[in-house]
Amino acid sequence: MRASQYHINTLKEAPAEAEVTSHQLMTRAGMIRKIAGGIYTYMPLGLRVLKKIENIVREEMDRAGAIELLMPIVQPAELWEESGRWTEYGPELLRIKDRHQRDFVLQPTSEEVITDIARNEIQSWRQLPVNFYHIQTKFRDERRPRFGLMRGREFTMKDAYSFDRNEEDAQASYDRMYDAYMNIFTRLGLTFRAVAADTGSIGGSRSHEFQVIADTGEDLIVYNPDSQYAANIELAEAPCLINQRGNADASMQKVATPEMPKCAMVAEHLQRPLTDTVKSIVVTAEPANEDESAAIYLLMIRGDHELNEIKVGKLEGFERGFRMATDDEIKAAFGCSPGYIGPVNPKAPVTIIADHTVANMSNFICGANEDGFHLSGVNWARDLPEPEVADIRNVVVGDPDPRGGTLSIQRGIEVGHIFFLGDKYSKALQATFLDTDGKPAVMQMGCYGIGVSRISAAAIEQNHDEKGIIWPRAIAPFEVVICPMGWHKSETVRQACEKLYQDLKNQGVDAILDDRDIRPGVMFADWELIGVPLRVTIGDRGLNEGLIECQIRAEGQTHKVPVENGTTYVLEQLQLLSRSK
Amino acid sequence: MRASQYHINTLKEAPAEAEVTSHQLMTRAGMIRKIAGGIYTYMPLGLRVLKKIENIVREEMDRAGAIELLMPIVQPAELWEESGRWTEYGPELLRIKDRHQRDFVLQPTSEEVITDIARNEIQSWRQLPVNFYHIQTKFRDERRPRFGLMRGREFTMKDAYSFDRNEEDAQASYDRMYDAYMNIFTRLGLTFRAVAADTGSIGGSRSHEFQVIADTGEDLIVYNPDSQYAANIELAEAPCLINQRGNADASMQKVATPEMPKCAMVAEHLQRPLTDTVKSIVVTAEPANEDESAAIYLLMIRGDHELNEIKVGKLEGFERGFRMATDDEIKAAFGCSPGYIGPVNPKAPVTIIADHTVANMSNFICGANEDGFHLSGVNWARDLPEPEVADIRNVVVGDPDPRGGTLSIQRGIEVGHIFFLGDKYSKALQATFLDTDGKPAVMQMGCYGIGVSRISAAAIEQNHDEKGIIWPRAIAPFEVVICPMGWHKSETVRQACEKLYQDLKNQGVDAILDDRDIRPGVMFADWELIGVPLRVTIGDRGLNEGLIECQIRAEGQTHKVPVENGTTYVLEQLQLLSRSK
Repeated sequence: MRASQYHINTLKEAPAEAEVTSHQLMTRAGMIRKIAGGIYTYMPLGLRVLKKIENIVREEMDRAGAIELLMPIVQPAELWEESGRWTEYGPELLRIKDRHQRDFVLQPTSEEVITDIARNEIQSWRQLPVNFYHIQTKFRDERRPRFGLMRGREFTMKDAYSFDRNEEDAQASYDRMYDAYMNIFTRLGLTFRAVAADTGSIGGSRSHEFQVIADTGEDLIVYNPDSQYAANIELAEAPCLINQRGNADASMQKVATPEMPKCAMVAEHLQRPLTDTVKSIVVTAEPANEDESAAIYLLMIRGDHELNEIKVGKLEGFERGFRMATDDEIKAAFGCSPGYIGPVNPKAPVTIIADHTVANMSNFICGANEDGFHLSGVNWARDLPEPEVADIRNVVVGDPDPRGGTLSIQRGIEVGHIFFLGDKYSKALQATFLDTDGKPAVMQMGCYGIGVSRISAAAIEQNHDEKGIIWPRAIAPFEVVICPMGWHKSETVRQACEKLYQDLKNQGVDAILDDRDIRPGVMFADWELIGVPLRVTIGDRGLNEGLIECQIRAEGQTHKVPVENGTTYVLEQLQLLSRSK
Repeated sequence: MRASQYHINTLKEAPAEAEVTSHQLMTRAGMIRKIAGGIYTYMPLGLRVLKKIENIVREEMDRAGAIELLMPIVQPAELWEESGRWTEYGPELLRIKDRHQRDFVLQPTSEEVITDIARNEIQSWRQLPVNFYHIQTKFRDERRPRFGLMRGREFTMKDAYSFDRNEEDAQASYDRMYDAYMNIFTRLGLTFRAVAADTGSIGGSRSHEFQVIADTGEDLIVYNPDSQYAANIELAEAPCLINQRGNADASMQKVATPEMPKCAMVAEHLQRPLTDTVKSIVVTAEPANEDESAAIYLLMIRGDHELNEIKVGKLEGFERGFRMATDDEIKAAFGCSPGYIGPVNPKAPVTIIADHTVANMSNFICGANEDGFHLSGVNWARDLPEPEVADIRNVVVGDPDPRGGTLSIQRGIEVGHIFFLGDKYSKALQATFLDTDGKPAVMQMGCYGIGVSRISAAAIEQNHDEKGIIWPRAIAPFEVVICPMGWHKSETVRQACEKLYQDLKNQGVDAILDDRDIRPGVMFADWELIGVPLRVTIGDRGLNEGLIECQIRAEGQTHKVPVENGTTYVLEQLQLLSRSK
């Protein structure tokens, strides 16, 4: 490619609305242009990145035995009614009507359509296992789309769906996809983790997220630096930090803590460590039916810990969801304001659930159920009944890993998610097949997503500096840029550039030759912003000494290389770049 | 690819609703599955065809210097309001509302978005010319979608848009696209014609359609077998068939023609050739404003000819459209019923427009403006004033080509269309640039479409037999199928098949090895239906003599080939298949 024949249009400033680095840099580098909120045109440079990601995903999916097809974007409401998601799915599901006033959706995902295809196409166990995938435009009508491609409304996703005879086979299909995803993200050149994850609204019993590690990530990943363990914080098991409950040697005392509704205030006031305090959180579980009254629960975690609502939602009694209790509900049950709640002698019967650590605490500090007062020296069994115990807190850095070692936390961007679905959709849509015994059985499903366009943004969040993007080689819009110093003036420079360009092309290198009539500084700034991993600069001064200059975008230093070794050197450097992750 | 690892699911019967061959065969071959009216899933085999078409289109567009990007499917109404098409475009434009009740469309085409991009991206003449294209899903909400991929609602299209400094440059861009299209359709292996065409609702001043020749095509193409001339019948110039008007030697007579409202009846009754009769058609042009009354026109074509409404629509006075006159309007203007209208002494003043041939007729027969009567021996100038003259008829087979030779007609399926747009969209959206003189000028545009998914259907309409599809090599889902006779029984057969399969793969041939445990007859029928161009059959009987069997799908005969020559033979045959179009 020659830059003069291509469309390169960088911007000095990012639009004010671009809040995250990837959005700013992709806009400035001319990779995307906004058409409406959360809807972008992939400009030529951006599309090159997208296509390279797509191709790697496609190759690895094919290698794993998945079969590509293409399901439509516009899908009839009937199928979504069959699965129940026509009503269950929130306003992110864009519902539309055609000219005959028939209901359709713009697909955010294709479980319904693929299950419909499977029930029509698959009659016998002989046709199983099968795994269909497509790379297709999706639409999710986010309430407040932002962050560029990190959370757009129209985006590109690869979604795959496996169908198996039984759970065991379905687990094997799941494992094959897990391996394929490991290969995909490795080939993309990204630092990532596969983490055990919650299944959320998609459903199913097991799932893993693939997280690109980046400080700007929305997700928190709990991992063990010394083992393979990694889980989304929503799922990561929080250990009990106290092996054995200590002696109840302090007496319970009511202490005045005026205007101190927070644990930290009380701890400071009493000159005790925060880890001696207990946080009381009151929640209301939604009742099974309208006649029942809502049940009040008191959740207890140590003062320095945070509640994990996903874990709470999975407890018995919370099947229909829960919410934070209102001030009135708290007043009725505890007779005090939120900052002074405690487990000792509530006014009304409430179920107390203590986190594992809290359950082993002794002589602890908690609210006194009286505004302006806390209790110190509180002990289970002696001062109040033993609580129910459950894991309801988030892991924190330094928590011991029950499997050995210590847990750490880092931030990540979810770019892939695989789910073991079981029969959730196949049962609803009656996707059955005739099993070996001649009897109909329901297919076991898995679904496997990769956010193709999101990966491009995540790669930037992970790899950039103050000058711009630093693409991993595998997904860079170009692998190499050749910058002539004086293209329009020096025949020698032109010839040397042309030769290197042709040699690299012949070696299969994706190079661009910048033959634009612009100043070197502007040219360099463009390519640093765009993030091409390797730059070769060729000018008369160097050529006089038989040298050209190479610069690895990620490093910054330039290396002088004899002109006759140019191609070899570039190929070697690209090899090293591929290996560096 | 191995068939056992792939999804092949052929059907004995096509669905009753499949009216056209391509729809029937694509469904039976398992290439598409209907999800809703005009909305299909491309099944794995169908997607392979689509991708091969896409790749050829992409390669030739890139070679022609066009730059790929990707515009979104969901586009904001504002841009369509700017161009005026938000209201002008009919109900085929699917208008939708997002969760905030903002208006969007599902794009049927992208003139608005690309013009918006151009006006933002292009500031200077230095950035021109530029030609952007994308290959993207389109949606047209057809009233009655049918014919499978021939006229779907959701479909894949390549659309390109060129921007130039002036008309001359824009013409050069247009010509480059014309050449690229010639290359594309040649490489696709289709018999096609580039034909001059009407610009229709897209607008602009020049256009060419690319038509795949097929008896089942909707379009009529006028062409000269001895020259390059070809035009859509809507546009093709119809010559005057009478060089010089003959003498007015018959006298005008009123003849009784009871119950004979058609030219053919009158001609038979009077024992005169149909070419002596003239057909009178009364149309009403829409007035310029509501105060004006609608103008009545009498259009005259020879009895054996047909009116061309597109040509009429371009005449002076018809700028705002026209319609067939009502019986009441005809009665008022001519005093008779539709079957007896004539140009001699109408009751009210009407403009008479005669086709070129009619204008040179003498002693002709026409309606007498009295029910049950015609006039014979009618002559211009003597019996009625000279008419206005225009080309208002369709060309018929055998018409002389004014450039020499004789015109012929064949049917075609429109798969590509290129338009010289001028400033229609760039003016509406104010897409200007600073020209060499430093002054803003409006860009000149062209737009260039290819119906990617439609091509797959058109290829089948052109290439099929009673057994199924006969794909051109370039877009076949697989180029070669290897059919083992006794895969599950004979190690010798398996080894021979595996060797050929690997050899072909190493040579870059897209082959499939059918390792399914099915009867040979079923296997052969599958591949004949699916339309793979070359089949190799390998069995113990042949191998005992050192032979394998090859069959070209289009020919049907089998050729025995020494097993050691298998790969060479297949490569040669594929070469021949590529050249045969």
